Amino acid sequence: MKILESRTAPNPRRVRIFVAEKGLDIPYQQLDFMKELKTEAFKKLNHFQRVPVLVLDDGTAISETVAICRYLEETHPEPALFGVGALGRATVEMWNRRMELGLLMHVAQAFRHTHPAMATLEVPQVKEWGEANKPRALEMLAYMNEELAGRAFIAGEAYSIADVTALVAVDFMKPARIERPSAFQNVERWYGEVSSRPSAKA
Amino acid sequence: MKILESRTAPNPRRVRIFVAEKGLDIPYQQLDFMKELKTEAFKKLNHFQRVPVLVLDDGTAISETVAICRYLEETHPEPALFGVGALGRATVEMWNRRMELGLLMHVAQAFRHTHPAMATLEVPQVKEWGEANKPRALEMLAYMNEELAGRAFIAGEAYSIADVTALVAVDFMKPARIERPSAFQNVERWYGEVSSRPSAKA
Repeated sequence: MKILESRTAPNPRRVRIFVAEKGLDIPYQQLDFMKELKTEAFKKLNHFQRVPVLVLDDGTAISETVAICRYLEETHPEPALFGVGALGRATVEMWNRRMELGLLMHVAQAFRHTHPAMATLEVPQVKEWGEANKPRALEMLAYMNEELAGRAFIAGEAYSIADVTALVAVDFMKPARIERPSAFQNVERWYGEVSSRPSAKA
Repeated sequence: MKILESRTAPNPRRVRIFVAEKGLDIPYQQLDFMKELKTEAFKKLNHFQRVPVLVLDDGTAISETVAICRYLEETHPEPALFGVGALGRATVEMWNRRMELGLLMHVAQAFRHTHPAMATLEVPQVKEWGEANKPRALEMLAYMNEELAGRAFIAGEAYSIADVTALVAVDFMKPARIERPSAFQNVERWYGEVSSRPSAKA
């Protein structure tokens, strides 16, 4: 089993944090964005030529960040990062999606559609759309700030994949040039805690 | 248990199809987009004031379409619509995400950013961004056409939530004004099959 990735991108980081929280030791292989990802050989592993990709010992390739994490959760259930019990798992699913579709997606769209480095990769780069995503990311942070007043982590009292997604999204705000408001004190408390876990450096 | 929804929207339809495939009998309550969804009472159930929302007998509210479906899968495992076994579940997760992020999302963005009826709801409505999503939806259909040459359903030989997402996305192409190419014969075969299941009319 190995994980193909490009170290600087946000989705590979989600998988690395997840793997570290599980305490797993899986080898990583770095692929160059402009070279290896463009090859036909890699296209056979993931038609969309994106990383991360988990390659099993029999050659089976699993792509999509959350699908990789789910495979690892199924094969290594402890600690549970997708929740426990029917309601717990639905709650983590709900919050992971809110963090993904309501925060990370907006940060990524802002990055892709406003950053000069993305002009040749995101075609057409639509600046008005990129800018429209910035206040949406901040609205989600404001809601997280309300919610985190009442609990330790994004989806409840236990650390979960929703925290992984949210941490990566918040850190991705920097290259996306969205300033994190210091007034969201519950977000700051949460961010300090999840950032100081060893997994955050994975 | 009851499901709050607005019948014409695509995400409520995903849940209805899922419920029908499970053979469950859950009461639906219709909410008006412009009235009930805007109330503070509904905001307490889902901060984002979107449907569908599953409300349990104790008042617990679960939002996000796939989180609702996951709760129903956990509490009513048969027939399995999220896959069987670690690899099976990861494969369904991968394909459901491809259908969601790589098809439904593009169709929805095209609809939201180009349809005149959405001008007051999607602010700013960015036509260039809406148009940019149309070819991306068609690229995914082309890939689905390749993949469906070799198997019955989106994620394998069994019908799954990935088929639900894909069917709703393909039908949503009509209001989004994206013409479905008749040349994708494997997509047409699959579409004919999933559309003729009783659940498609739910």
